[in-house]
Amino acid sequence: MRLVRSRRDLAQALTKLDGPQGIGLVPTMGFFHAGHVSLMERAVKDGASVLSVFVNPLQFGEGEDYERYPRDPDRDLRIAEEAGIDLVYMPPAADVFPPDFSTSVTVADLSALYCGHFRPGHFEGVTTVLARLFGLIKPQRAYFGQKDYQQSAIVRRMVTDLALAIDIEVLPTIREDSGLAMSSRNVYLTEAQRQAAPFFHQALSDTERDMLAGERDGAKLLAKLERRLKKIPGFKPQYWALADAKNLQPKATAVEGDVLLAAGHFGATRLIDNCVLGESAKSGPGAIKRP
Amino acid sequence: MRLVRSRRDLAQALTKLDGPQGIGLVPTMGFFHAGHVSLMERAVKDGASVLSVFVNPLQFGEGEDYERYPRDPDRDLRIAEEAGIDLVYMPPAADVFPPDFSTSVTVADLSALYCGHFRPGHFEGVTTVLARLFGLIKPQRAYFGQKDYQQSAIVRRMVTDLALAIDIEVLPTIREDSGLAMSSRNVYLTEAQRQAAPFFHQALSDTERDMLAGERDGAKLLAKLERRLKKIPGFKPQYWALADAKNLQPKATAVEGDVLLAAGHFGATRLIDNCVLGESAKSGPGAIKRP
Repeated sequence: MRLVRSRRDLAQALTKLDGPQGIGLVPTMGFFHAGHVSLMERAVKDGASVLSVFVNPLQFGEGEDYERYPRDPDRDLRIAEEAGIDLVYMPPAADVFPPDFSTSVTVADLSALYCGHFRPGHFEGVTTVLARLFGLIKPQRAYFGQKDYQQSAIVRRMVTDLALAIDIEVLPTIREDSGLAMSSRNVYLTEAQRQAAPFFHQALSDTERDMLAGERDGAKLLAKLERRLKKIPGFKPQYWALADAKNLQPKATAVEGDVLLAAGHFGATRLIDNCVLGESAKSGPGAIKRP
Repeated sequence: MRLVRSRRDLAQALTKLDGPQGIGLVPTMGFFHAGHVSLMERAVKDGASVLSVFVNPLQFGEGEDYERYPRDPDRDLRIAEEAGIDLVYMPPAADVFPPDFSTSVTVADLSALYCGHFRPGHFEGVTTVLARLFGLIKPQRAYFGQKDYQQSAIVRRMVTDLALAIDIEVLPTIREDSGLAMSSRNVYLTEAQRQAAPFFHQALSDTERDMLAGERDGAKLLAKLERRLKKIPGFKPQYWALADAKNLQPKATAVEGDVLLAAGHFGATRLIDNCVLGESAKSGPGAIKRP
């Protein structure tokens, strides 16, 4: 595994990597969990693999956790090596965004909904850093986790609109045995919050089950979901929504393939999760869990 | 010369074009004058050449001349053929921007200055359509005229920031014998306005001469320029500025290579022009004129 910390070394290392399958990029902010590992393993399986590790200041709002976002670069590098990654780009922020950097890439509409409503500027930060990384690395594939459902939809939209020849691969959310979606931010949770956190996923799954049992009325499903979320000890739901899988517009009537999206706080810790209706039934219990 | 009117046909035609030199793109809004022809001839000389002809709605503000912008596609195609262009992409607006298109690309700071101040959203429209065309066509070179000086600086910034591997070639402004910069919008001018219009270039050149004769004080140079612009019959100057050639920031003291930028109206017709200090002295009289 080669490690580079500057655009210059990155460009040089990339010339040696390109092969018939092209390059697969796993863009991350580090502090890896099994979700990241699943993306890396898939990238390695698909061809030459590049991992970027970089806490992107643009996607944090004022008062958010940019400074205290968990970091463990040494452990990250060991995990990347074990996963078989070919090249790691782990730069300081100023290498990605030099002082005269001034371009931003925005996906209107999609970026203002849901998480974007509560984190203004967040998705613009995401699409801008990705457009930059896509330019620097020129991958043919990029890998994202389904946990960040809205992000994936936005990235797909950007890639289509800018006609970037990149396949966006969205891999299943990796969950703890409890059902809690893996997240670098889970480390913030207190023991009591950790005990309650699995009910977040449970609330989504139960609502999916209602839908599969025949309830198609979006308002009724969301009322059930709301009640479940509000019953979770110590949890403050922020939003809950039923959306079209692709354009993320709110749906009044649910069909399989639609997605339930939700976010909320345990204390200062913000968690998100989602559930594609009918998907967990298809994949079966445990299929998207990992120890 | 091959003509395509859809992204689909464009993609297919491009597969047959690519060569060792890659592709050169001349992005235009049509209604060609000698300035466009100079870009086409250069693109043809440099390798495989693609011309896009498309009046981009995104770069027109409310109340601007999108609807009445001059169009003459048949003449444009004849001129392109004569110039030796390989492939013309002349689509309807909906082919470039399908209904679900929602990405925008902006270059902050640079886009708010000068023309951007008076045409809010204009440069965002330019950078967005170019990012889209760059993605669809994937050129190695793109050609622009120096008349749109601020646009070139913004496009260069975008290409650097998004790490697009595209050389931005900016070719000299082509002028009528009178000195008037060629522009598709010159067709709007009345006979009287046409008589007066060359004084716009003259005002810039005279101010350049003041600078080359020793006047380096930006405020004094701009005061002279202002006086000259305001003396032009029927002309309403909109802005006049002395700027750094690259980052376009206003300069207090002029050095060679800085640029004088200006815009103004003859009636409803808005003209822009610029002068890189020391450049006309270097290239000599007539060097950037064409009949």
